[in-house]
Amino acid sequence: MQSLKVAIIGLGTVGTGVAKILLQQPERMTRRAGQSVELRRVVVRDVSKPRDVDLPEAVLTSDIESVINDDQIDVAIQLIGGIEPARKIMLSLLESGKDVVTANKALLCQHGDQLFARAEELNRCVAFEAAVAGGIPIIAAVGQSMAANQITSIKAILNGTSNFILTEMLSKDRSYVEILERAQKMGYAESNPAMDIEGTDAAQKLVILTQLAFGTKVPLESFLCQGIDLLELADLKYAQELGYTVKLLAVTQLLAGQLEMHVQPTLVRHERPLAQVDGVFNMIELDGDAVGPTWYSGLGAGQMPTASAVVSDLLDIAIGRAQLTFSRLDLWRHHLPLPVRTAEEISRRYYLRYNVEDRPHVLADITDILGRHQISLASVIQHEASGFERDKSSAASIVPLVVMTHRTTEGSMRAADIELDKLASLRPPLIRMPVAD
Amino acid sequence: MQSLKVAIIGLGTVGTGVAKILLQQPERMTRRAGQSVELRRVVVRDVSKPRDVDLPEAVLTSDIESVINDDQIDVAIQLIGGIEPARKIMLSLLESGKDVVTANKALLCQHGDQLFARAEELNRCVAFEAAVAGGIPIIAAVGQSMAANQITSIKAILNGTSNFILTEMLSKDRSYVEILERAQKMGYAESNPAMDIEGTDAAQKLVILTQLAFGTKVPLESFLCQGIDLLELADLKYAQELGYTVKLLAVTQLLAGQLEMHVQPTLVRHERPLAQVDGVFNMIELDGDAVGPTWYSGLGAGQMPTASAVVSDLLDIAIGRAQLTFSRLDLWRHHLPLPVRTAEEISRRYYLRYNVEDRPHVLADITDILGRHQISLASVIQHEASGFERDKSSAASIVPLVVMTHRTTEGSMRAADIELDKLASLRPPLIRMPVAD
Repeated sequence: MQSLKVAIIGLGTVGTGVAKILLQQPERMTRRAGQSVELRRVVVRDVSKPRDVDLPEAVLTSDIESVINDDQIDVAIQLIGGIEPARKIMLSLLESGKDVVTANKALLCQHGDQLFARAEELNRCVAFEAAVAGGIPIIAAVGQSMAANQITSIKAILNGTSNFILTEMLSKDRSYVEILERAQKMGYAESNPAMDIEGTDAAQKLVILTQLAFGTKVPLESFLCQGIDLLELADLKYAQELGYTVKLLAVTQLLAGQLEMHVQPTLVRHERPLAQVDGVFNMIELDGDAVGPTWYSGLGAGQMPTASAVVSDLLDIAIGRAQLTFSRLDLWRHHLPLPVRTAEEISRRYYLRYNVEDRPHVLADITDILGRHQISLASVIQHEASGFERDKSSAASIVPLVVMTHRTTEGSMRAADIELDKLASLRPPLIRMPVAD
Repeated sequence: MQSLKVAIIGLGTVGTGVAKILLQQPERMTRRAGQSVELRRVVVRDVSKPRDVDLPEAVLTSDIESVINDDQIDVAIQLIGGIEPARKIMLSLLESGKDVVTANKALLCQHGDQLFARAEELNRCVAFEAAVAGGIPIIAAVGQSMAANQITSIKAILNGTSNFILTEMLSKDRSYVEILERAQKMGYAESNPAMDIEGTDAAQKLVILTQLAFGTKVPLESFLCQGIDLLELADLKYAQELGYTVKLLAVTQLLAGQLEMHVQPTLVRHERPLAQVDGVFNMIELDGDAVGPTWYSGLGAGQMPTASAVVSDLLDIAIGRAQLTFSRLDLWRHHLPLPVRTAEEISRRYYLRYNVEDRPHVLADITDILGRHQISLASVIQHEASGFERDKSSAASIVPLVVMTHRTTEGSMRAADIELDKLASLRPPLIRMPVAD
């Protein structure tokens, strides 16, 4: 019987999970691949480091060339993070005739088109289900199952760490800093959490999904991307009071032939499925012009969920399905790129919170500025001042003013912000979050 | 350029939706199929009936033989419902060399193994994403994306009509009969709603998913199947009060090497995603041993969602992917069938509601019977009698007694029911619903 020969490059958390499935479920692999699956090489930096999985003799190596030069290896599972040397290694693997499975979202976000084009020239394929939303088969949904549709929007929670922090802040009544520390202790946030909490990780995944769904590559730097690191517990609570949950929402939608794209903490109405996803789970709401709204949810990270996606890609390559899928992702490459709206043109409702002096005419000053920028108010909440909010440097106490606007543009809001910033009666920071459609 | 030639058999709601996509989106079809898609024949019973879609000249026919005998036709989209003649037509189509796309769940539930075996002999394929949960790509998820996993459970809301009725009963505070009438007027329930509200439709879909996930064919008659037609509003409200929502839940789970399978109105804790699916939407919670829990939700019926699934299958056949998928569904056919637990062996918690006489020792009589059958109580609610619940034939008033049990077996419950039935102080019906794990 034929066997599929596989190498794993990088034996971190996910690589170890993949090795476990391949080594512990050989019968399952054979049945689903139509051939046995042989783990022939595992490339690591340090072969002496203790591992969580028992590898067969002579499999472990620190020499990537032993994979590149081995013509017997059919598929390389490339699990090295970052851009370089991951990019060069991936090109070498493709050039040496191997199909590649990868979970490296940063690499695909930045160099995906180059890598895919090279794979196509070489008649090889790249499978990347694991790069977006871990165990949720969203690449298959967008690239295959929605094929009858024009996808009209993607609205998603793509970063489990941020979602965990937002959920815990509210349920434990604690500040961002306290919950971040807790998440780091629990292993839900890395010691350097910047990629997760600043929105970059979610934005990279959104770039990949957007390319796949709309055939348009939107560079990471060219759309609004904010994380959860500046959020205050108070705003999560006001949002709650108004009937909304704050989520780090990654959105791409097709509106009048243009793409609108952003990653931001966003108010989502309680009743909507996206508002109900708690903790480390991810969810993608995908709309198609025939199918209507669909939702996909599960664990977006972690050893075994991500390994599940990697191995399902491997099995897809084993039976020849991934190659067909890859060759038909023309929605990815042969499309006229859609124009992308500038941030200023984006139109939606906003949640605003200002710290204002509790004295006559302050509200009138603010509404005057907003009104002159065509921003009309849907509702206003002004709470009474509590002791600690008293401004020690002046006689007036400081009170929070919470406003929900009607639909307006980001451009109008920015212009209004400049004028509001000059009001002496208004103390920084000016909090502003969009409301999901 | 090559073209894929297609026939639609049956131009009802879904067939019309499929024709609309094929005729109104030719450029999209060509791009995604890698060839143009030509709608060559549409077979209907009555060619003179007015249609919602403009068909090209000479496409419409009432003669199925004109499809069977046309060697040019590559794919038949078989949308005739029921068992016969749908089964014979499908065999003829396969035997004449056509691949078949179908949405006929009743046929696949009853004769799937015969039809699939015949297709395999003939080197043809059958694609059936549309047969289960309409626009939700659950066949792709189970048959492809979860390939790295042993699926451990399927818990699903698979009937939109029942879910709509349950949602509306509670939100409108109306009885089952009133809401059913309303659903019929709105087109969400058929004039003969038996298949939907008695659970048969959900059970057929569960049989298909179970075969696909566990390789075991479980006949429709051999597992517990109850619908929502005997539910009372009072029970939905008591469940709510206890922290649960009642859903028509279709469940197959793998427990200690055995399958447990049932379709029943079931109490689901408010916080669980399955409890939060309202109206005509469907949801499938799929658990795998690597990926953990995943959720898929969307419209499970309706013209365009179902047409989306049919056309995505058609495009999968066009690029050759469906054929590979079909040939690898060995989880379907080459498996040792798993043993299925008898109803009596099924173990879970229960919600009970009894109408009891409001006099001393009644509760003691009931708890004595339950206790002798090893059924222990987790909580009891006894409300005061209201006027209309007074039993006119006796001096004692009748009050509802609501009990949540600890885990016990269906067998114990049935044995207790027989004894409870004989208690003069307890008036029929005895309401009993399982609680989801």
